[in-house]
Amino acid sequence: MAKASKRTAIQPTREENYPEWYQQVVKAAELAENSPVRGCMVIKPWGYTLWENMQRVLDRMFKETGHTNAYFPLFIPKSYLEKEAQHVEGFAKECAVVTHSRLEMGKDGKLHPASPLEEPLIVRPTSETIIGEMYAKWVQSYRDLPILINQWANVVRWEMRTRLFLRTAEFLWQEGHTAHATEKEAWEETRQMLDVYAKFAEEYMAMPVLRGEKTEGERFPGAVSTLCIEAMMQDRKALQAGTSHFLGQNFAKASDIKFLDDTGNTQFAWTTSWGVSTRLIGGLVMTHSDDDGMIIPPRLAPAQVVILPVIPKDEHRGPVMEACESLKKELSAITWVDGQRLDIHLDARDLRGGEKMWHWVKKGAPIRVEIGPRDLEKGGVFYARRDTGEKAGCSREEFVGKVTTILDEIQDGLLKRALDFREANSKVIDSVDDFRAFFTPQNEKQPEIHGGFAYSHFCGDPALEDQLQKELKVTVRCIPYADEAEPGTCIFTGKPSKQRVVFGKSY
Amino acid sequence: MAKASKRTAIQPTREENYPEWYQQVVKAAELAENSPVRGCMVIKPWGYTLWENMQRVLDRMFKETGHTNAYFPLFIPKSYLEKEAQHVEGFAKECAVVTHSRLEMGKDGKLHPASPLEEPLIVRPTSETIIGEMYAKWVQSYRDLPILINQWANVVRWEMRTRLFLRTAEFLWQEGHTAHATEKEAWEETRQMLDVYAKFAEEYMAMPVLRGEKTEGERFPGAVSTLCIEAMMQDRKALQAGTSHFLGQNFAKASDIKFLDDTGNTQFAWTTSWGVSTRLIGGLVMTHSDDDGMIIPPRLAPAQVVILPVIPKDEHRGPVMEACESLKKELSAITWVDGQRLDIHLDARDLRGGEKMWHWVKKGAPIRVEIGPRDLEKGGVFYARRDTGEKAGCSREEFVGKVTTILDEIQDGLLKRALDFREANSKVIDSVDDFRAFFTPQNEKQPEIHGGFAYSHFCGDPALEDQLQKELKVTVRCIPYADEAEPGTCIFTGKPSKQRVVFGKSY
Repeated sequence: MAKASKRTAIQPTREENYPEWYQQVVKAAELAENSPVRGCMVIKPWGYTLWENMQRVLDRMFKETGHTNAYFPLFIPKSYLEKEAQHVEGFAKECAVVTHSRLEMGKDGKLHPASPLEEPLIVRPTSETIIGEMYAKWVQSYRDLPILINQWANVVRWEMRTRLFLRTAEFLWQEGHTAHATEKEAWEETRQMLDVYAKFAEEYMAMPVLRGEKTEGERFPGAVSTLCIEAMMQDRKALQAGTSHFLGQNFAKASDIKFLDDTGNTQFAWTTSWGVSTRLIGGLVMTHSDDDGMIIPPRLAPAQVVILPVIPKDEHRGPVMEACESLKKELSAITWVDGQRLDIHLDARDLRGGEKMWHWVKKGAPIRVEIGPRDLEKGGVFYARRDTGEKAGCSREEFVGKVTTILDEIQDGLLKRALDFREANSKVIDSVDDFRAFFTPQNEKQPEIHGGFAYSHFCGDPALEDQLQKELKVTVRCIPYADEAEPGTCIFTGKPSKQRVVFGKSY
Repeated sequence: MAKASKRTAIQPTREENYPEWYQQVVKAAELAENSPVRGCMVIKPWGYTLWENMQRVLDRMFKETGHTNAYFPLFIPKSYLEKEAQHVEGFAKECAVVTHSRLEMGKDGKLHPASPLEEPLIVRPTSETIIGEMYAKWVQSYRDLPILINQWANVVRWEMRTRLFLRTAEFLWQEGHTAHATEKEAWEETRQMLDVYAKFAEEYMAMPVLRGEKTEGERFPGAVSTLCIEAMMQDRKALQAGTSHFLGQNFAKASDIKFLDDTGNTQFAWTTSWGVSTRLIGGLVMTHSDDDGMIIPPRLAPAQVVILPVIPKDEHRGPVMEACESLKKELSAITWVDGQRLDIHLDARDLRGGEKMWHWVKKGAPIRVEIGPRDLEKGGVFYARRDTGEKAGCSREEFVGKVTTILDEIQDGLLKRALDFREANSKVIDSVDDFRAFFTPQNEKQPEIHGGFAYSHFCGDPALEDQLQKELKVTVRCIPYADEAEPGTCIFTGKPSKQRVVFGKSY
């Protein structure tokens, strides 16, 4: 017997076609869309407000850990990229190159590049080299250290296959760049910022993450070590959601960041860099959304509550709108997490009720409140939770009193659900056969749908890692932080392994 | 008898060499510096925090007037620029052109541009064309209007002669882009946003501005009308500090932004755009600073109060630092304008007192507070105002009680001083001889030092305006808003003039 199909707001469903479902959720929630410029997206107001909310929280966290913001040039001279060998290797293959500084009208009535530059400029794919150049000027003595600066900026990496938020040619991000007098301090900074990212992901995005170190093959070009947070999406693939790099003295040497230490000796500084980007929005969508569209964790929602007036007849408009406006005012005065006031949206558009309701379901507003003439009579409201679909009526007073409790429940519930999902799809695997079976698609049409995260012993051989990637599209996502490293034997080679690592397919 | 020269913290003084004084103030306050990339600046933490404070206030004002933020691509296809004839004319001469998407290592061991693009991309000098393209997709019916979107972004204009903040190849700005169903509504928006800018300039920057309309020659390329705010700097030159453009249907036609009106007819939308940039920081510096460095209006200061511990002997460190920390905590809890808490900086660096004091004088912190062992005994503080140089001692309690009053006094005093300066250097001029004399440098070494703003009748002939610019470097800064236009006779041609316009030399 065929399963009764429930009509969903998003077509196709996750089960039918996960990548397409993602695109449709992003579209339906009006988060972003592709622009006519290849690989560059337009972030629409609902999506951008989500980014602003992420920025607000992260920016506060950066400032609380002693960082300040600054701004460095968009362009990087070609010769700067050449300074760090691995860095060139990593970024030269996909970058926007500015070669001219003028357009000239030709005889064909079209504009042509004119005034070639002496040295081509690269649109920054990341800013280690240009920022390093400035730090070299700013640092003379150990008294000038540490430098703890963050930059909010756009960067460009000429990706061939792009996907809204997850991989775009231009994206928005923050990049922290710090310089320290000692190796120890630089390592502490690297770890501290990874912890900041993990805290943000779990407490605000309700997205559980594994913290760990990357293997050599997945390291940032030029870094000594890359730490990362990795999250599991609903197709069981891993999303690298943030990275924090310990750069050692590599970039200090390339940019000549030297200082006189307190004994009068010249030393190279130790540097770090760390970043998260608009990719987080993609992660948020894929962690929580369902077949009816987006579900936004309340702490980051552009509006925690959306108020929908129900106006059956024109005569009801006045009193209903008045009640809605007054509820909006009352709710907007409530402070919640970090002392922020609630953001409340009143949707006064002249649309059919069902259309309006679905609009906000698809956009993922955590709570929808309806007020109509019948609710007015009894001083009540009718509300619906986006996460559970639960609907209830209560007095307006009661709703105002418990709204933050409901929001906390939604926030906690989303984190728990995502954590449960990850745990249910993570497995300790101790044989190659099990490993292969785990990563073999269970659904031919959807190669993404495989087992999830495998915890296996691995000897660390880069050639073997390459082979696994080619054969199974599986990589080591991270060598996870472990309270006690539990040594064992590599399931592929039988060589010794210090601890289990996390394997997965990734975005 | 030679005038006794007072040694100033900034050399040269304004009187000696105004342009060089400006560079030195920016340097001494650590606001920004030139980068190795021609024309691109590095905005340092103190300068960037100033920008963040400006952003915070402006962003709130934009949202209060119904706008939301979004983000559009950095790159504009060359063909888009070609769509609006005047727009091309205005921007093609100075733009960064991306022609390749890869760098390839050559036999010479250097990187060379590779993978040429099919169509060159321009790094946005402004975004009317790319945003117009998106609006054309988003707008079908009058119900989709108005669109009220703002973007915070970086833009690039390949200026040949650059000057920190005032004119740089890359700068940060916001650009509002709105689309409306009617001409009237678009005009209202254009005027409303100019009023927002004027309010921000006067109430936050303490920088008085004239509001008015640009003449044809100074109009934004492609606009029907450009409104502007103009401020007078201390060299009596005008700084265009913000513009709001009524674009008519020009860009709607170029980008095909059409809609079905409520009678079922297809119409082109009416659009506006408006922007202010990091140039405002240059204006702020030149409006208030003196020969000892920067003076920042308290409402925008990165720190309203800087606390300087005075520690003559090591044994004093503990109690003095404790008192400083506790004062910082107490002051930081005070809310002031817009419910914002005061920003208080405690400078605990191990530096000589004089050096530290001058550091903050040059950075322009509105109030400096010193606490030393003697102050502790009597529970007092010693404070100094940056604007007047006034120094006083009082009890700590009294200081806490009156700190916001002092900040208000500083804010109001700076505005009044700037307004008085402008009025003292503005003149109604009714003859060509007086006009020439007014704009003839009074100091050969400093061609900037001329009369200031001249209010004169002008027939509006663009050729005459061109000639004045070539001959005297004077342009019409604006046709000022006037409660009642007072007609007269052009002082140059004797032709009729609708009202006096403002002439000046400009940045």
